[in-house]
Amino acid sequence: MAQTLYELVGRDDHRFSPFCWRTLMALRHKGLRPERVPVRFTEKPKIAFSGQELVPVLVDGATTVSDSWTIVQYLETAYPNAPALFGGAAAQAEARFINHWADGQLQPAMVRLIIGDIYACLEPADQAYYRKTREARFGMTIEALAGARELELEPYRRLLAPLRATLKEQPYLCGEAPAYADYIVFGAFQWARCSSPYPMLEASDPIFAWRQRLLERFDGFAGAAKSFGA
Amino acid sequence: MAQTLYELVGRDDHRFSPFCWRTLMALRHKGLRPERVPVRFTEKPKIAFSGQELVPVLVDGATTVSDSWTIVQYLETAYPNAPALFGGAAAQAEARFINHWADGQLQPAMVRLIIGDIYACLEPADQAYYRKTREARFGMTIEALAGARELELEPYRRLLAPLRATLKEQPYLCGEAPAYADYIVFGAFQWARCSSPYPMLEASDPIFAWRQRLLERFDGFAGAAKSFGA
Repeated sequence: MAQTLYELVGRDDHRFSPFCWRTLMALRHKGLRPERVPVRFTEKPKIAFSGQELVPVLVDGATTVSDSWTIVQYLETAYPNAPALFGGAAAQAEARFINHWADGQLQPAMVRLIIGDIYACLEPADQAYYRKTREARFGMTIEALAGARELELEPYRRLLAPLRATLKEQPYLCGEAPAYADYIVFGAFQWARCSSPYPMLEASDPIFAWRQRLLERFDGFAGAAKSFGA
Repeated sequence: MAQTLYELVGRDDHRFSPFCWRTLMALRHKGLRPERVPVRFTEKPKIAFSGQELVPVLVDGATTVSDSWTIVQYLETAYPNAPALFGGAAAQAEARFINHWADGQLQPAMVRLIIGDIYACLEPADQAYYRKTREARFGMTIEALAGARELELEPYRRLLAPLRATLKEQPYLCGEAPAYADYIVFGAFQWARCSSPYPMLEASDPIFAWRQRLLERFDGFAGAAKSFGA
């Protein structure tokens, strides 16, 4: 049965959504290679069939699933014989914490470093949408946020400490091999890499080496994505 | 075989070390009830036999183990037939991230709220030790830190967001039942509760309800500890 994944796209085929990257890596982990349908911010009618407005949306035969967390649970249930994305109930429950940490702390810290670059990476019609929604969210213009970027480095760096300490001791968040908690956090770094030339990690950082291993995984799948190479 | 746990104590039998609480809960989880030997900050000779200077130290028959993370791994290996503290390799690896998050972010945010109370909760000889080591660490006097407490509330509250979001969706960090990742984070709240009257959580907070369930667990074991009841 063929799968289709609807995912966010910016200009020049830059596909940077952190939520879509979690799902893309999870699909590969399960050995699935979906058809990938790009959706711009202002192309919401393309996914109206899913009954909501956000990517990723996975269509697997007769089943339509949206929301990255719902999708990974669907994949684990629908493909129990493919490699596990969690590795047990406790691991899944702890991955939920890591998911909320990425959504609520890591990504909000990152967006303040790359928001100007994300904006520049969008088609003009999407820029208008992005400006309106993000400026309402932050209560500042994109230009003001981008101009204050250097001030946001310290909170971002502080946030990385527990991730770095963990990856100094073990190759992946999930241990000896990557699983969904790794893909959650990797999605955040891939978001930055595919939308911005800003160097989010130094080459000497254990997080950099971990990201590199995930870029190379699945025959270099994520590494081949259109990015700014930072 | 009987176990002995050497654990930190302040004045009037207040036992508040977050690292000791992780281990105490882990021991109960395994069905073990160690003899508990109180050790003050300035009684390091009591644990010199362990070859290092920090509590908790577990003695289990001929085996001596220190460091809370090393102890929990020991318990999981030595008592494989008692309830699991992790629930698989991926869960253990993810718990390591939660351990670093608690050590490196949650507890450092908390200590700024309770440091004056911890100081007041120590015997005079330990106060001198605590003042010297903590003032060197923070580069400020305990009184200056305590005086700035209200400024530290916002960073602390922000840190709790992913924990709260997770506990809105599932009863424990480890899912339907608590395991070691819960005890790690619980240890931080028990540290505050046993050393300070400062209200760290509001009664309407899902984290409060989670803490309450853990205070009641094992026949109210942690709830019976000498505390300020906040």
